[in-house]
Amino acid sequence: MPSRRVARLPCAIAAKLKAPQTALHSLRSKQKMIIVYHLETSRSERIVWLMEELGLPYQLQVFPRETTGAAPRPLKEIHPLGKAPVIRDGDTMLAESGAIVDYLIHRHGGGRLALSPDDPAYAKYIYWLHFAEGSLMSLLLIALVLSRVKEAAASPVTARIRERMKQMLTFVDIELAGGPWFAGETFTAADVMMVFPFTTLRNFLDYDLAPHASIVAYLARVGARPAYRKAMSLAGPTRSYL
Amino acid sequence: MPSRRVARLPCAIAAKLKAPQTALHSLRSKQKMIIVYHLETSRSERIVWLMEELGLPYQLQVFPRETTGAAPRPLKEIHPLGKAPVIRDGDTMLAESGAIVDYLIHRHGGGRLALSPDDPAYAKYIYWLHFAEGSLMSLLLIALVLSRVKEAAASPVTARIRERMKQMLTFVDIELAGGPWFAGETFTAADVMMVFPFTTLRNFLDYDLAPHASIVAYLARVGARPAYRKAMSLAGPTRSYL
Repeated sequence: MPSRRVARLPCAIAAKLKAPQTALHSLRSKQKMIIVYHLETSRSERIVWLMEELGLPYQLQVFPRETTGAAPRPLKEIHPLGKAPVIRDGDTMLAESGAIVDYLIHRHGGGRLALSPDDPAYAKYIYWLHFAEGSLMSLLLIALVLSRVKEAAASPVTARIRERMKQMLTFVDIELAGGPWFAGETFTAADVMMVFPFTTLRNFLDYDLAPHASIVAYLARVGARPAYRKAMSLAGPTRSYL
Repeated sequence: MPSRRVARLPCAIAAKLKAPQTALHSLRSKQKMIIVYHLETSRSERIVWLMEELGLPYQLQVFPRETTGAAPRPLKEIHPLGKAPVIRDGDTMLAESGAIVDYLIHRHGGGRLALSPDDPAYAKYIYWLHFAEGSLMSLLLIALVLSRVKEAAASPVTARIRERMKQMLTFVDIELAGGPWFAGETFTAADVMMVFPFTTLRNFLDYDLAPHASIVAYLARVGARPAYRKAMSLAGPTRSYL
């Protein structure tokens, strides 16, 4: 089990304190432990999950959202774009989910949870790893922004985006039928990247996943993983923004 | 210089025929040459550029856009989502820019244009590689979709997205000042991923890059690369959609 510290931020940002502060934790934190900056109910839950899957020690700093749902201003002090996730590894500050996943796996995880380029399932692995943000989240964000523009409710553009969402999720559902994981037989970082868009759907968008039986079954498999359960207890969604 | 075939599609899709059909080309095409499916004025220009930078042989199939600007239906026969880029490598069909870039570099390019995880610039490399689609294109697509919703013109959401675009491009501009390339001293696949969003800006969005001097200077450096020039002559933007 990885050691983990959940710290209170200096700038009066409340943090969840769920991990015991043992001597071991303190010792490891002096060894320049990786810090994971997590924004409540956001993509950064993936990085907590990844650290738990890899069994790497880390310190968790949680930023609650503002009452409007916006990211809080102090995240801007961590990274110029004020977004999460961000990690700190010694002098390196790194943002962007996909980049952090690649970085942690290949710099600290000995390549675990990645497939090597000569693996027959490499194309599948690398596809879903990039698809998660490059296609799926990208489309969901468009739908989310449109849902915030009251005047766009009756626009044919909105209807087209909803239709594209359904088409994309149907495609994912069909692909997952060959499961159990996105790359096939092996659980990989592609899964760590792919799960969050579905939880976002549930938390931010009014979209029913029930017709996508393979996705629903897949999420049940994910939910049974001890590392996922631990990560969600530390950094899982706390609010619905529907 | 890589060999290259630009093929006419069976389904009556016109293709640009710019490369000579020599015996060498025919021979190589029988050796299961990689096929790059390119949608006119789209992300897939990156993959053509990457193949030229890597000097790998490939066959290019160009799909013109419909008069509405939409991707043509036959792209759906290539990939269920009907998007580009897609490549074919033997029995493997692969979509998603970032995935294709990783796949080609690590499966066929011997890791060239990537930085290894122990390189001091690895974090920068992997950041921009993912940022291109995960953050920048994602935001630009939101702006593009909103620009198509007439009713949203006066919405505060639209204003906020424009503001975020400016903020993000200012951030990129500052980061690039340390150039010459996104990862620093070395030209990498992160550059191949990052350039297209800027050309998109010019072709699809009414946004003036002139205030971002480092980005403008960077694009001039990119434009001087022989592989980029060749790729643009084969697969560069042909129309403006403003």
